[in-house]
Amino acid sequence: MTVTGPQGFRAAGVAAGIKASGALDFTLVVNDGPLDVAAGVFTRNVIKAAPVLWSQEVLKQQRLKAVVLNSGGANAATGPGGFQDTHATAEKVAEALGAGAIEVAVCSTGLIGERLPMDAVLAGVGTAVAALDASNQASLNAATGVMTTDTKPKQAFAKHDSGWSVGGFAKGAGMLAPNLATMLSVLTTDAVADKETLDRALRAATHVTFDRLDVDGGTSTNDTVLVLASGASGVEPTEAELTELLTAVSHDLVLQLRADSEGATKDVDITVQGAESEADAIAVARTIAEDNLVKTALFGSDPNWGRIAMALGRVPARIDPETVSIAVNGVTLFAKGMPAADRSEADLTGRAIEIVVDLGVGSAESTVYTTDLSHGYVEENSAYSS
Amino acid sequence: MTVTGPQGFRAAGVAAGIKASGALDFTLVVNDGPLDVAAGVFTRNVIKAAPVLWSQEVLKQQRLKAVVLNSGGANAATGPGGFQDTHATAEKVAEALGAGAIEVAVCSTGLIGERLPMDAVLAGVGTAVAALDASNQASLNAATGVMTTDTKPKQAFAKHDSGWSVGGFAKGAGMLAPNLATMLSVLTTDAVADKETLDRALRAATHVTFDRLDVDGGTSTNDTVLVLASGASGVEPTEAELTELLTAVSHDLVLQLRADSEGATKDVDITVQGAESEADAIAVARTIAEDNLVKTALFGSDPNWGRIAMALGRVPARIDPETVSIAVNGVTLFAKGMPAADRSEADLTGRAIEIVVDLGVGSAESTVYTTDLSHGYVEENSAYSS
Repeated sequence: MTVTGPQGFRAAGVAAGIKASGALDFTLVVNDGPLDVAAGVFTRNVIKAAPVLWSQEVLKQQRLKAVVLNSGGANAATGPGGFQDTHATAEKVAEALGAGAIEVAVCSTGLIGERLPMDAVLAGVGTAVAALDASNQASLNAATGVMTTDTKPKQAFAKHDSGWSVGGFAKGAGMLAPNLATMLSVLTTDAVADKETLDRALRAATHVTFDRLDVDGGTSTNDTVLVLASGASGVEPTEAELTELLTAVSHDLVLQLRADSEGATKDVDITVQGAESEADAIAVARTIAEDNLVKTALFGSDPNWGRIAMALGRVPARIDPETVSIAVNGVTLFAKGMPAADRSEADLTGRAIEIVVDLGVGSAESTVYTTDLSHGYVEENSAYSS
Repeated sequence: MTVTGPQGFRAAGVAAGIKASGALDFTLVVNDGPLDVAAGVFTRNVIKAAPVLWSQEVLKQQRLKAVVLNSGGANAATGPGGFQDTHATAEKVAEALGAGAIEVAVCSTGLIGERLPMDAVLAGVGTAVAALDASNQASLNAATGVMTTDTKPKQAFAKHDSGWSVGGFAKGAGMLAPNLATMLSVLTTDAVADKETLDRALRAATHVTFDRLDVDGGTSTNDTVLVLASGASGVEPTEAELTELLTAVSHDLVLQLRADSEGATKDVDITVQGAESEADAIAVARTIAEDNLVKTALFGSDPNWGRIAMALGRVPARIDPETVSIAVNGVTLFAKGMPAADRSEADLTGRAIEIVVDLGVGSAESTVYTTDLSHGYVEENSAYSS
C-alpha cells in the first residue's frame, strides 16, 4: 500500500476504455478525512492543459475531496471544449461522492491536442467509484492507471516514528524536465496540517526532488504534483518533519521515474558545487543534464569531460575558467582550468554515474538527476506519437 | 575557387600528421593585399580555447596577414601550455611570411582537453607555406584541412556586378549551436573596406546566418568566423552591399553545414513570426530547435505539433496561449489556441521541413536552421570521442 498507506484514503485504477489497448487508464484517489486539506504545484509551461487550469482553481479553495486522473490523452491544447470535458469529469466524480465539483482535482496525461473520448471517461467514473478500496491492490491499480510509456508503476511510502505517514505514486517517462518532469504525482498523508503549512512543505520538497529531475528538457503542459492530508493519524508534525517526509517520498519517486525514463541506460547525478548562488548551481547542472553531446558520451560510457566543460561554459552564470574542476565517478579529470587525471581512469561502464563540477567561486550547491541519450530514446520518441 | 576566389588571396591545405589517419589537417589562408583589413566573431562560451583567446587579441590590431587552422585537436582547456602552442604556431607562420606573429590568427578544432602534437604542427607550417596557391585545388584543400566529422568540404562564393566578390569555407558537423555553431569559417573579399565597416557587415551577416544554425544546442569553445579583405578589386562597396554579399555566402555555408551535420536526415527551418521582439522570436525558435521530443518526432516524419506547443510554452517570452498558431509544411495544425487541420494532412516524408509558428502578439520574426535527432547522431556521438 502506498497512496492508501496513510490512513483515511481509498483509491482505484480501472480500464475505462480510453486506451485502445484495454489497459488500466483511469485512477481515482479519495480523501475520507476527517481533514480535506490539499496543496499542489503545477507546470510552468504557459500552454497549460485544461485539467491543470481546472485543478489550479480547485486548489484556491479550502477543500479537496478527490483526484481523478486519466492516461490515454493529455486534454491539452484542446480549447474551451477540452476545459468543459475536464469540468464534466469533475462533476461526475463529485456527484458520485456527494461533494462539489470544485472539490475534485483532475489530471490527464497522453497525446497533446486530442479531445478525450468522454463517453468512456464518464462511464469510467462509476466503475472507479465502485472499485474504491484501501488495499495494496487498489494502490497498485491507481499507480498503474496513470502510466503512459512507463514500463512499471512507481509507488513510495514512508512512516514517521510518531505514527503518521506519507505515501504516493507518480508517472512519467518522457518530456521529463525543468520545474516538474512530465509528470503526474499524487501524495497522501494522514498527518494533521493546515493548508498553508502543507503548501510550504510541498514546495520545499518538490524544489529539491521533482524540480531537479531533467531527462530531456521538456516541460509538459500537464505536470502536476498534489498532496492530500486526511489528518486521520491525529498527529500534527512540525513543518520541518512534514517537509522531510514529503521530500523522502518524492525523492524515492524521482529516482524511480529516472530509472524508467525512455531509453535510459545510465542514472546520472550532476552535482554543481562552489557556485555563487543556488540559481547558478541549478542552471549549470541543468545545462549539462540537457546537453546532447554530454548525454551521448555518457551512453557510450565515455568520460568526455571536454563536452562537460563546453556545456557549462555556455551558461549565463558566474564562471571563471581558471577555477572550474570536473570529477566523474570520483576521478578529477579537470582541475582549476587544467587537465588532470587521464580520462581512462574514470570507469563509466556501470549504470550509476556521478558528475561533480566545482565552480570554485562560492559555496552554493545543487544536484540534478538525469539520464543518458540512447538509441532507445530516439526509437521510442520517433516511432510513436506521444 | 572559393576562399581564393576573391583577388589577393592564396591558400593551402596539407597533411601535417596531426590526425593519425594521415588526412589533410592543416590549412593556411594568406592575404596578399594591398589591404590587410579583417574582422572576426568568436564563441560566447566562457571556456574559450587558446586559439580563440589569441585571435581575439590579433583582431584588436589593425592588420591581419594570415589565418592558420588545424583539425585534429581543439587546443581547448589546455591551460598556459596550450596558449604557448598557439603563439608558437602564429610565430612560425609569421616568420615564413615576413610578418609579425600578432598579424596571424589561429583556429583549432577537434577533441577538447588534449595538447597538440607541436612537432607536427610546426613542420606543417613549412609544408603549407610551400603549397600556397590561388587555384581551385588550393581552395578545396584549405576547406578540406579543417574537416572533423564533416563528410565533405563546404565552400561558397558570390560575385557582385561591380566586380568584387566574397568567398570562403566553413567546417562543423556537431556541437552546432547558439551564437556560432561549433564551427570555423574563413571568408575572404577583394572589396575595399575599412575595419569598422567590415566588422559591422560581418556582425550583421552572422547575426542572421551562423548565429541561427542550431543543431544540438552545443556552443563550442572554438567557434570562430573571420573575414579578410584584400582590397584587390579596387572597388569600395557600400556597407549595405558588403553586408548583403557576406550574408549570401554565409547563408550558403550554413545550409551546407546543416545538410552535413551529424546524423541529420531532415533540413528543418523554424520560423517564428508575430513575436513581440526579435529576441522573443529567436528564443522560441531556438527552444523548438533544441527540443529532443520535437527533433525525434521530425526524425519519425511525425507532424506532432503538440510537442512544438509544449516546447514553445516553456520559453520565457511573451506568449498568449490563445493567439498561437502552428503550421508544418504549409498546413496549419493549430490555430489561435485550437486544433485545426488533422496532423495527417501535413506530409513530412521529404527531407525539407518548414515549421512556422505565429505567436500573434507582435510583428517581429526570426528563422533558426536545425535538423532532426536521429540514430545516426546518437551513434556518432556515443561511439567516438570528439
